[in-house]
Formats: sequence, structure tokens, C-alpha cells
Amino acid sequence: MGKVIAGITTSVDGYVTGPDDGPGKGLGEGGERLHYWVFGGHWTYDALPEGHATGEDREWLDEAMRGLGAVVGGRGTYEAAERWGDTNPWGLPFFIVTHRPEDQPEGDVFRFVDGLENAIAAAQEAAGEKHVHVMGGADVIRQALEAQLVDELAIIIAPVVLGGGKRLFEGFDKTIELEHLGVRQSPFATFIEYRVVR
Amino acid sequence: MGKVIAGITTSVDGYVTGPDDGPGKGLGEGGERLHYWVFGGHWTYDALPEGHATGEDREWLDEAMRGLGAVVGGRGTYEAAERWGDTNPWGLPFFIVTHRPEDQPEGDVFRFVDGLENAIAAAQEAAGEKHVHVMGGADVIRQALEAQLVDELAIIIAPVVLGGGKRLFEGFDKTIELEHLGVRQSPFATFIEYRVVR
Repeated sequence: MGKVIAGITTSVDGYVTGPDDGPGKGLGEGGERLHYWVFGGHWTYDALPEGHATGEDREWLDEAMRGLGAVVGGRGTYEAAERWGDTNPWGLPFFIVTHRPEDQPEGDVFRFVDGLENAIAAAQEAAGEKHVHVMGGADVIRQALEAQLVDELAIIIAPVVLGGGKRLFEGFDKTIELEHLGVRQSPFATFIEYRVVR
Repeated sequence: MGKVIAGITTSVDGYVTGPDDGPGKGLGEGGERLHYWVFGGHWTYDALPEGHATGEDREWLDEAMRGLGAVVGGRGTYEAAERWGDTNPWGLPFFIVTHRPEDQPEGDVFRFVDGLENAIAAAQEAAGEKHVHVMGGADVIRQALEAQLVDELAIIIAPVVLGGGKRLFEGFDKTIELEHLGVRQSPFATFIEYRVVR
């Protein structure tokens, strides 16, 4: 079985969204700034991003994607992303954690699962030998860490202090020992990879 | 005039102390873990740390120290460190921000200054062409960032989730654009250096 790898982009002050995120508002005020690394630089919600990751960003993304067999995301993230226009952005089995699995759109573009542990189990089955990526939101990553289901944690830090938004570790009161697996940096992000010591 | 460089070690969840820090308790529960990089690995409050920074930790420290001409720290940090046994740990002019400058011990081992801006100005005068290091605590670094007095920010991230303590960016609601100056990693820390864009 592959590993469970949680990974998310945060600001230097630990926010995974700016203030006032949600449907129609993406990652909130200034939240675009978190994902400059994904789109090759500046973009805004006013237009669809047209750029692509380049350089170190591209290399990190390609290496991360290569091992993946399935993805788990939260319902809030799914809604904030406006259901990715009803198109699975990963090209991999994509499991959405929700209390209302009956809301799943027809087909299996997105697979709605009740509860994080069930979603990760289903994703691991779909992924086989490959890894499962837990993409967020923050609450889903906290739950996965708390349930000790995470083998590796990738924190991608964008070079900005947002001053507000949703904190990755809000309300999280467990201690977790980590080990470094590596670091790299582009103009738009610092990628730190950890192994979770259990 | 040299630069003003704020630098501090945080956990992955953004804490610069563990829970319950203070005089007699150092950086609080688990807070030793933040400074493994300073002492070459494991240590606890039960005995004075005997180790020294090695490898990448040593190199980073040596490079950082080379340019420094003075240091600014907060009164809370000074008290939590038990006044460093009344010995200046930096070997450089060391200014302590306090509302009660009259509490300064005799001599100038520590120079008590009323207010952060005054302390940074005095440190810059003492440092001449060299840099001023703002070492913390968190509140002093937040004040320096808010007053736009910081040229560079070094965030040193220890590979641990502490689950509680004092957050570096607690209550900080300003947006700050940063630029990467570099990154390095040892087994005990990831050092990220930023230029503050003003």
C-alpha cells in the first residue's frame, strides 16, 4: 500500500486561505498569492489563471504527482473551488469527504464519502501501490493528522504574511514529531517535506 | 547603516514557545525541541545544554552572526531566559525593550530601553555599518514588522508540531509581501530567509 501524504500551501503566518474565502470568493482576500507557484506567478480571481508552474515549482509538482494514485479533499474546498467546474482537476480518483454523500453528482468524477477515515480507506484501495494525497482544506488535514493517518506532510510556504484567513493548525492541540525529508525553494514557494514520526 | 533582521525559531504550527513558558519554565512544555538546532540535538531543561550547533546549523549561525552589530530583545524573553544568568549571551550590545528602563541592572551588560522603536534606533547606532538582530519574543517581532522597521525576516522552523504555546503571528492582521533570500535545512531546522518588500 502506498503512503498517505498530506500537503497544502500556507502563508508565512500559517493561513491556507486569506480572509473571507468561500464559494465565489476562492481562497479569500489575497488568497491568490498562495498559489503563484502553481500558475507561474501573478494571477487574480478576475480572470482564469493561464500560467503554469515552471522551474522548481514544476519539478516539485511533477515529482509529487508521479507517485500519486488518488486524492482526498474536503467538501468545503470542493464548494469553494466551485466544484472545479464539474471536472476532476487531478485526473485521478478523487474522494470528497462530506456528511452528505447523497449529494454526489452523477457518475464518479467526484466520489463523495462520509467521513475522513472512510475516504482515505477508499482512496488507498483505489491507489493500490501508489500514494494518496490529502489536499485539504485545513480541517481535513487536521483530522487526518489527529487520526494518525498521515505518513508524510508537505508544507508549501508562499512568501507572504496574509494577516488573516483560515489557519492550518487552528485549534490543533496535539504534539507531532516530524523528520525532514527535504526542502526546495522557488521564487514563489518553499517546499518542506516531513515524515510523520509515529 | 546596517539592516534590521528579525529572526526567530518556530514550530511547524507557528509557535515560538510551547505551552506554559516563563521564568523557571524556559520556552514551556516541549519548547526545548525548538532549539535542538542550537545545541546539536536533544537537550532538556533538566540540565544545562552542553552541545553546540554543527553542520548546516553552525554554518547558518556563523553567517548570521558575522554581520551583526547589536541585538534587540523583549523584556519577557529576558525574564523567561532568567536574565541569561546576568551574562550577555551575544557578546554584542544587547538592548532590552521594556516599559521600565529603570530596572536595568548596573553596568551595560544589558541596556534597557523604553519602547521598541527607541531600542532599534539605539541598536542601529551601536551597530554602525553592521546589522541589528531583533531576536523576539513574538510580540517584539510583531511590533517591529507592524512599524515597518524590519528589512529581513529569518524564520527557522523546527520539525515539530507543538500544539500550543505563543504563536509568532498571533493577532497580527497586516499583509506583508516577502521575497525569498534563501533556504537551507539541517536535521533540526529549516532556515528560510526573506526580504520584506516595502
